[in-house]
Amino acid sequence: MKKIPVSILGATGMVGQRFVLLLDQHPWFQVVALTGSDRSIGRTYGEACRWVLADPMPEYARTMVVQATEPDAESALAFSALPADLAREAEPRYARAGKGICSNASAYRQEPDVPILIPDVNPDHTRLIDAQRKIRGWKGFIVTNPNCTSTGLTMALRPILDAFGIQRAIVVSMQAISGAGYPGVASLDILDNVIPNIGGGEEEKVESEPRKMLGSLSDGKIEPAPFQMSAHTNRVAVSDGHTVCVSLELGKRAAPEEIRKALEGYEFPEAVRGLPSLPEKFIEVRGEQDRPQPRKDRNAGGGMTAVVGRIRPDPVWDIKFVVLSHNTIRGAAGGALLNAELLVAQKYIDR
Amino acid sequence: MKKIPVSILGATGMVGQRFVLLLDQHPWFQVVALTGSDRSIGRTYGEACRWVLADPMPEYARTMVVQATEPDAESALAFSALPADLAREAEPRYARAGKGICSNASAYRQEPDVPILIPDVNPDHTRLIDAQRKIRGWKGFIVTNPNCTSTGLTMALRPILDAFGIQRAIVVSMQAISGAGYPGVASLDILDNVIPNIGGGEEEKVESEPRKMLGSLSDGKIEPAPFQMSAHTNRVAVSDGHTVCVSLELGKRAAPEEIRKALEGYEFPEAVRGLPSLPEKFIEVRGEQDRPQPRKDRNAGGGMTAVVGRIRPDPVWDIKFVVLSHNTIRGAAGGALLNAELLVAQKYIDR
Amino acid sequence: MKKIPVSILGATGMVGQRFVLLLDQHPWFQVVALTGSDRSIGRTYGEACRWVLADPMPEYARTMVVQATEPDAESALAFSALPADLAREAEPRYARAGKGICSNASAYRQEPDVPILIPDVNPDHTRLIDAQRKIRGWKGFIVTNPNCTSTGLTMALRPILDAFGIQRAIVVSMQAISGAGYPGVASLDILDNVIPNIGGGEEEKVESEPRKMLGSLSDGKIEPAPFQMSAHTNRVAVSDGHTVCVSLELGKRAAPEEIRKALEGYEFPEAVRGLPSLPEKFIEVRGEQDRPQPRKDRNAGGGMTAVVGRIRPDPVWDIKFVVLSHNTIRGAAGGALLNAELLVAQKYIDR
Amino acid sequence: MKKIPVSILGATGMVGQRFVLLLDQHPWFQVVALTGSDRSIGRTYGEACRWVLADPMPEYARTMVVQATEPDAESALAFSALPADLAREAEPRYARAGKGICSNASAYRQEPDVPILIPDVNPDHTRLIDAQRKIRGWKGFIVTNPNCTSTGLTMALRPILDAFGIQRAIVVSMQAISGAGYPGVASLDILDNVIPNIGGGEEEKVESEPRKMLGSLSDGKIEPAPFQMSAHTNRVAVSDGHTVCVSLELGKRAAPEEIRKALEGYEFPEAVRGLPSLPEKFIEVRGEQDRPQPRKDRNAGGGMTAVVGRIRPDPVWDIKFVVLSHNTIRGAAGGALLNAELLVAQKYIDR
Repeated sequence: MKKIPVSILGATGMVGQRFVLLLDQHPWFQVVALTGSDRSIGRTYGEACRWVLADPMPEYARTMVVQATEPDAESALAFSALPADLAREAEPRYARAGKGICSNASAYRQEPDVPILIPDVNPDHTRLIDAQRKIRGWKGFIVTNPNCTSTGLTMALRPILDAFGIQRAIVVSMQAISGAGYPGVASLDILDNVIPNIGGGEEEKVESEPRKMLGSLSDGKIEPAPFQMSAHTNRVAVSDGHTVCVSLELGKRAAPEEIRKALEGYEFPEAVRGLPSLPEKFIEVRGEQDRPQPRKDRNAGGGMTAVVGRIRPDPVWDIKFVVLSHNTIRGAAGGALLNAELLVAQKYIDR
Repeated sequence: MKKIPVSILGATGMVGQRFVLLLDQHPWFQVVALTGSDRSIGRTYGEACRWVLADPMPEYARTMVVQATEPDAESALAFSALPADLAREAEPRYARAGKGICSNASAYRQEPDVPILIPDVNPDHTRLIDAQRKIRGWKGFIVTNPNCTSTGLTMALRPILDAFGIQRAIVVSMQAISGAGYPGVASLDILDNVIPNIGGGEEEKVESEPRKMLGSLSDGKIEPAPFQMSAHTNRVAVSDGHTVCVSLELGKRAAPEEIRKALEGYEFPEAVRGLPSLPEKFIEVRGEQDRPQPRKDRNAGGGMTAVVGRIRPDPVWDIKFVVLSHNTIRGAAGGALLNAELLVAQKYIDR
Repeated sequence: MKKIPVSILGATGMVGQRFVLLLDQHPWFQVVALTGSDRSIGRTYGEACRWVLADPMPEYARTMVVQATEPDAESALAFSALPADLAREAEPRYARAGKGICSNASAYRQEPDVPILIPDVNPDHTRLIDAQRKIRGWKGFIVTNPNCTSTGLTMALRPILDAFGIQRAIVVSMQAISGAGYPGVASLDILDNVIPNIGGGEEEKVESEPRKMLGSLSDGKIEPAPFQMSAHTNRVAVSDGHTVCVSLELGKRAAPEEIRKALEGYEFPEAVRGLPSLPEKFIEVRGEQDRPQPRKDRNAGGGMTAVVGRIRPDPVWDIKFVVLSHNTIRGAAGGALLNAELLVAQKYIDR
Repeated sequence: MKKIPVSILGATGMVGQRFVLLLDQHPWFQVVALTGSDRSIGRTYGEACRWVLADPMPEYARTMVVQATEPDAESALAFSALPADLAREAEPRYARAGKGICSNASAYRQEPDVPILIPDVNPDHTRLIDAQRKIRGWKGFIVTNPNCTSTGLTMALRPILDAFGIQRAIVVSMQAISGAGYPGVASLDILDNVIPNIGGGEEEKVESEPRKMLGSLSDGKIEPAPFQMSAHTNRVAVSDGHTVCVSLELGKRAAPEEIRKALEGYEFPEAVRGLPSLPEKFIEVRGEQDRPQPRKDRNAGGGMTAVVGRIRPDPVWDIKFVVLSHNTIRGAAGGALLNAELLVAQKYIDR
């Protein structure tokens, strides 16, 4: 089978590098274009990119020449790791030119006709693409993956919402420095320190994105899930892996053991079975009193599985627990890649 | 004026070292005895103690000989930095021998006749000593300071409770490694990591101690403040300074600006004015979007002032904010020292 | 082919855990016994072991029952992760019982009849086993791998010594916390800090072990390589990966480019070719001005390749450079495993 | 006595902030001008400056309006915290306008007529100012303080050179992140990592500056001290405090105890006695096997004392030891301030 040609927009940044890495020898996709800023255009990726990941730069990328962020003839699909302001301007050009965009940027996430997708959580939301094409007159489309903190959180909420309902949630994150990109957080700001704010409207994102993803789609519109959410977002001295403490008021009471069963028993939707990047487990539940931990649990399922622990009664509401997920894999490039695989399976992208 | 002779129980541990440091040239107190474990007894403090603080060991302590933890003839007052199990057994011996105990241990905090004190929060709770003496037949007494995380949190809650009432609270801590003593947290456990649990019943302490301190005393009994509290406690890679994210449902609505005014306008109770260790400010409120931070704010007021920031509306309840306090100064030895000063001022200790 | 039954002595500690991990599905070896201290004996490994590695505990080990450190009937070979004092006493019992010991402990490294081995550096030193058996009357034997800091350093020195000779060396290490085992280094000692000493005679080991390994064996005796060595050893806040700065006075002058060629051109000795744990590259030379770095380079060759960078002229002597190697893989369990594979290939262990 | 009006050039950067802090209530100097980049000019310092130090911004500075970096009428003296490229261009304008410049920048350090000063090491080198004025026709002058790593190192070498002579030195630094300014080192580059290079010619500076400072001045020329020096410079995850491992070949043999005596017995030159920023001790020698450490020793003498430890024989040469000094106090702003005080005492600046 011939592979689907894809491009990576904003390939030299940190999330772009993750795309480059995850697409190395992907069974369905072949990278044919890497785009970058003026500083990088015309240079090889090996020269233009200050590689910051621990795994080495894949060979295929090293000699590719970085291009301007303009739709190329070949790609059927573009992965966007652009900053929000550039994404806002560039992504529609690609959609207009008939490309499917799997964007990690926040630029279009809150548009009513743009889905935020976690394939194993809300695969049906891709149908919003039909409304989007009608409204905007695009041959292509834009879909997004959520903010990195919303990702693991929404994964944990999905089975609980389904089984018990959710009335209210208060969540507090402890986020890794890689979430800020490179160079991102200055070392003087985080060594022996906590920064009790993330900037860029992070708390608002965490308060709205999960509700949109957990909402229901009908008549080309998404009705957000009707629970209330409050978020505190913090930066801590961790390289990768966002930890979130969650307190929930449920629709109906549930013991910790029931919550555990709901999480472990969650079945992958039919739509995602067999996707190459789907992990074996959606959620891993740990029974130890001191897990999940970023250093020990972020690589569960190759960084695609969320890890939940410390499920216990909440003296104010019903239940509390901790959820951890890998912010630059499931929470960014890996999430967008799974989105692309879903879109191929659903034939929004021709293979 | 002659200084009051005091002893430090468990002087070689981390909190014990803070006592040794804070009591150096104290205007009211003079250290006459340092106690330690069998391993240390008979050796000089300079030899027996692996000093871990950044400030150097005070000269007065270096040549003192470490004694067994038995009431000495001279001390009027003992500061206890004992672990809970040893405190449970040793502190009553001192109280029986007529000594006042200012204990940092958790052993007796939940006894109904033992007050947990923050002098500028609940100075009237010292009256519980009278009931305690009657019940136990002691000439001395035991008072305690709260758990390090409860301390700054309770300071922030006091003015809010007074002005607006509190119905429910969900709090999430990010706690410094010094809270676990020395050697305490293994470096392999915390480098590039978060541990989402503290152990030792930390969450239960945080859920109960603030309510006891903010409760009302009558007829020799404390009625805890009638709000609900849920706590998540986490360890992060910070040397000193506990950060707590707080969400509150109030008795009556209040805008962030009103909360700020209540915190900044809090007046020290009459009973504590003029105490040597009282900081200039009870609470410092910061207006920046990224404060308080442990490295920048823990030393406010010499480590005795709590710092509050990011006061903003909570979309689920009423208000949310962040509070930071120095866990081994205000949250441990400094808190116990202020307790002792209050007890002198209130004549529970003769000078 | 039937696998060779092996045991792991001191299996619950940090190096023991690495053995457990590296021996999972090893093509030649099958773990049949795990030994531990009194506290662990009789419990399953899953219960007895506080697992600290980021990779999960292999399934095979979880249900094995921890035994006393006494020679079992089945094992042909024992990997020793014992502390030096226990190793001194236990390892000879195994050797007497006919077992081959591949020891990570320092207890016997300096004995004249015990080889320190890096198979791709000095495979011929296994012949010292013959002398050892004669002297001690053992059917089995003890071989050791070097101290973790000596390992990468000696790998880098081997090709340089061969090509240009070495007169004098001054080396300064920046060592990872995992080198101290678990719990090992207290977090309060290393956060925002450097400890300019390792303890346990680390500097003496680094000053002597490389010279022994690079020495020549004749008449059942090793003549250490005749260069002088001075070491400074430091602990830094790194989880895995020891970095060593090296300044050398050579036997004959060599340009940086010649050193690079010698390092990259080093050919694996015939004796080690085809060993399962041998990495593709002995040494990887990096040309960037800021490499090697622990976080980016420690996993080169699965942690079995040493990485050298910053080869440049030394204004005092001839050449200086930086070498990095993974301290708990090549520098401990992985090194011992490669030793065992060599011993099988050389028929010191029957398969 | 009226205070001497001074300005701080590049006041908003990290070293500039240290100047602002150290000059708060200085007995001799009064800050009358703060300069900054276009982005800052015209705004108050409180607004323009992202304050990164743990101590709060002094009140005097908060409301001062940041000016362009042009000689003002009032200042007699300017402290320069400019980056090297701006310093190269701006500092001569000040010198021409009659101002004395105490520069922390490297721009002019290697000029033969510009002294690098550590007042308690080479106070006589200020006489180079006379040659400088003659050659350049300036009424003012430029003096510099050394690179932060050279500072503590040179302090340790001075007494040893005087007492025993030095033939050769190999030094390896482990440098704090604050040495790179703010934002400086990205957190992703240093968390769980070491960077084995500093950039900006750091090693060359460390190899030349100590020799210039320890050289002799005659006929308006400095003859560098005739020993050889090789440096490896590394960045580690430490906030403040540069640690340097030093191996020395001496002119004549000396036991560790003699070295200790030479270091502790060093007498402040007559010229510096009574300077306000002079610490009580030039060098503090620690006898513990694990000191000096950045977190515990960087604040010795208010950050102005160098701390030496682990003095021991070097098996290759004669002696080895570790020296630590505070890189942004003695190694930058504090050093420049002491230079200014010396220049006042020597009447190069009128009071």
